[in-house]
Amino acid sequence: MALERTSAGAAAPTLRDLETPCLVLDADRMDRNIARLRGRLAGFEVSLRPHLKTAKSIEVARRVMASPAGPATVSTLKEAAQFAAAGVRDMVYAVGIAPAKLARVLDLRAKGVDLAVVLDTVEQAEVVAAVSRDASAAIPALIEIDCDGHRSGVLSTDAERLVAIGRALGQGAELRGVLTHAGGSYGARGESALRQCAEAERRAVVDAAAVLRGAGLACPVVSLGSTPTAHHATDLAGVTEVRAGVFVFFDLVMAGIGICGVEDIALSVLATVIGHQREKGWILIDAGWMAMSQDRGTAKQAVNQGYGVVCDMAGDAYPDLIVADANQEHGIITVRPGSGASLPDFAIGDRVRILPNHACSTGAQHRSYHVVRGVSDVVEAEWPRFGGW
Amino acid sequence: MALERTSAGAAAPTLRDLETPCLVLDADRMDRNIARLRGRLAGFEVSLRPHLKTAKSIEVARRVMASPAGPATVSTLKEAAQFAAAGVRDMVYAVGIAPAKLARVLDLRAKGVDLAVVLDTVEQAEVVAAVSRDASAAIPALIEIDCDGHRSGVLSTDAERLVAIGRALGQGAELRGVLTHAGGSYGARGESALRQCAEAERRAVVDAAAVLRGAGLACPVVSLGSTPTAHHATDLAGVTEVRAGVFVFFDLVMAGIGICGVEDIALSVLATVIGHQREKGWILIDAGWMAMSQDRGTAKQAVNQGYGVVCDMAGDAYPDLIVADANQEHGIITVRPGSGASLPDFAIGDRVRILPNHACSTGAQHRSYHVVRGVSDVVEAEWPRFGGW
Repeated sequence: MALERTSAGAAAPTLRDLETPCLVLDADRMDRNIARLRGRLAGFEVSLRPHLKTAKSIEVARRVMASPAGPATVSTLKEAAQFAAAGVRDMVYAVGIAPAKLARVLDLRAKGVDLAVVLDTVEQAEVVAAVSRDASAAIPALIEIDCDGHRSGVLSTDAERLVAIGRALGQGAELRGVLTHAGGSYGARGESALRQCAEAERRAVVDAAAVLRGAGLACPVVSLGSTPTAHHATDLAGVTEVRAGVFVFFDLVMAGIGICGVEDIALSVLATVIGHQREKGWILIDAGWMAMSQDRGTAKQAVNQGYGVVCDMAGDAYPDLIVADANQEHGIITVRPGSGASLPDFAIGDRVRILPNHACSTGAQHRSYHVVRGVSDVVEAEWPRFGGW
Repeated sequence: MALERTSAGAAAPTLRDLETPCLVLDADRMDRNIARLRGRLAGFEVSLRPHLKTAKSIEVARRVMASPAGPATVSTLKEAAQFAAAGVRDMVYAVGIAPAKLARVLDLRAKGVDLAVVLDTVEQAEVVAAVSRDASAAIPALIEIDCDGHRSGVLSTDAERLVAIGRALGQGAELRGVLTHAGGSYGARGESALRQCAEAERRAVVDAAAVLRGAGLACPVVSLGSTPTAHHATDLAGVTEVRAGVFVFFDLVMAGIGICGVEDIALSVLATVIGHQREKGWILIDAGWMAMSQDRGTAKQAVNQGYGVVCDMAGDAYPDLIVADANQEHGIITVRPGSGASLPDFAIGDRVRILPNHACSTGAQHRSYHVVRGVSDVVEAEWPRFGGW
């Protein structure tokens, strides 16, 4: 079904008209989530460069970016190309650059897109500089800084490597600045720990910028971000921009850390009841891991939400009702063990909405968003999503 | 890149020409895997109804089905429609039917596709019969039997429910037969346990057929299957067809159970080295969970393969080298803890192939297969995959 926004007179489809499983986006919740981070960052001298890897949608991007031209962050060159085609002109491709990808970067830059790359080795910097020289087109690069040991990046204390990368870029490319991501904050618990993650993130990237500047290198951009730290930073001195992605939709992992409430989660998967195993207290639905993803990000949290939390058609969660197990196209709903909650009496054909553990991974299982607002079941629009690389 | 099969004279692309990450299919391994199950089943009086949910590809389907018209098994009505458009005429939609999906079933049947549905409640049978009467078109249905308690289905000992479902179908629909799936066999260990799963699967469905026939109901189809049991059944008396899916590609979960060797796995994800954290013994690649899926199906097995096993460009596994962790677009390669293996000296830009835990879920993250054969790195073709519902 390809829906355009319906006019007032047409019979608008509702959630009951959709094929299941499918992805539902509550635009009221999304709008509130976007306004909340914007409001929080308004108190700092930073710009917001939203990470569009969560949404992979032009319609969502336009609602979250400061302007139709950006700025934005992307995780693949496919995203860069799709958003460029929609008019975005200022992007950072925030995954360490591979040499074979530079031809596509140059191609987008030649079309007027200011696409910057990210790297953390002298080898990469030398290749980017050489390709820039060959093309007579300086590719801008940010040096990735490791603020918490969770993945890639240079330590801000490794002045030798930082400066060597900066100087290598200077041979034809452009040192645009430094960038970090506090991925470790997803494992933090409590306000105090989250504030510490945010300050460690800031400190790492500000220190790295100081190292580069101390060596006489320009470092205009000082970029950091993750949804948990963006919502907990108390000081952003020296930072020029904040990146975050999942704040747009939120999810059960974010609720588990305490960044949002379950009632703020804007994404859900619409599913249909297809069976029961009454002796076992199971309800079977047609949303398995293909519809929910296999992200079990809450399994390590205080409350394990299985494959997702079961809501009614208005998006309100049933008490302690979760998708406890999943096969490819089957989900098994149960009450949370030990909760004492009772299983609702669903009939075959009844519909539910399932809140996801991880908005990025559940979203990636679907080709479009079906857009509703609040408790209304009217589907206002269908917004395409893209995937791939 | 959209590749057709290249002629002998053209410069064929190789794995080094592809954008990464992408999905690679070794057609030699696939052909051997298909021949192996066909050879095994040739000793029994059964037909093979391959489950196409793993492949979601018309090109793969044509190589695994007995004829271009089928038979086949599907997990979504999208698969049914796609394969119907490609000429498949005999399919079972093997997920419990929801009433709202019957209109699409009728539509496909009206186009000459013998699509059967699956159900396990009297409520569903009554709806299928009523819809059949309204359409003057008897929809064939198989009663799902629960052989191991892992998901849905009626117990073969529940004669009352079985016969009630059969009789309800008789009011306008068609009782086509009984069907079961030994999903529990994925957790079995050892030849003896697997043979027991296979016999329990056979016994459940044959017993259920006997109950129905004893009540005077026809039960022409007696269908069972899973890749582990299909490869271990020693007796298929009373069974008319075997369903299996992942046997076409195999994966690390199947290797962990002992159904195949790692060297039989036909799917891999091509990835590029994008960084190192040498102090930690990490190599970073551009294949994260978006490319690999988040299936951690080997985590509960004797050997935890993380997010996948790292191979060279010819598809041969490095000793004890795995993708130990993954973010959305980053994979972290390490040697298996405690193995004493040494980390290969990959340079930025080097390429590797990663064998997946679960072919169904890793495949679903990609839009096409890049087809190679054996140790050759020539990409013979690009075969599209579809997704969605």
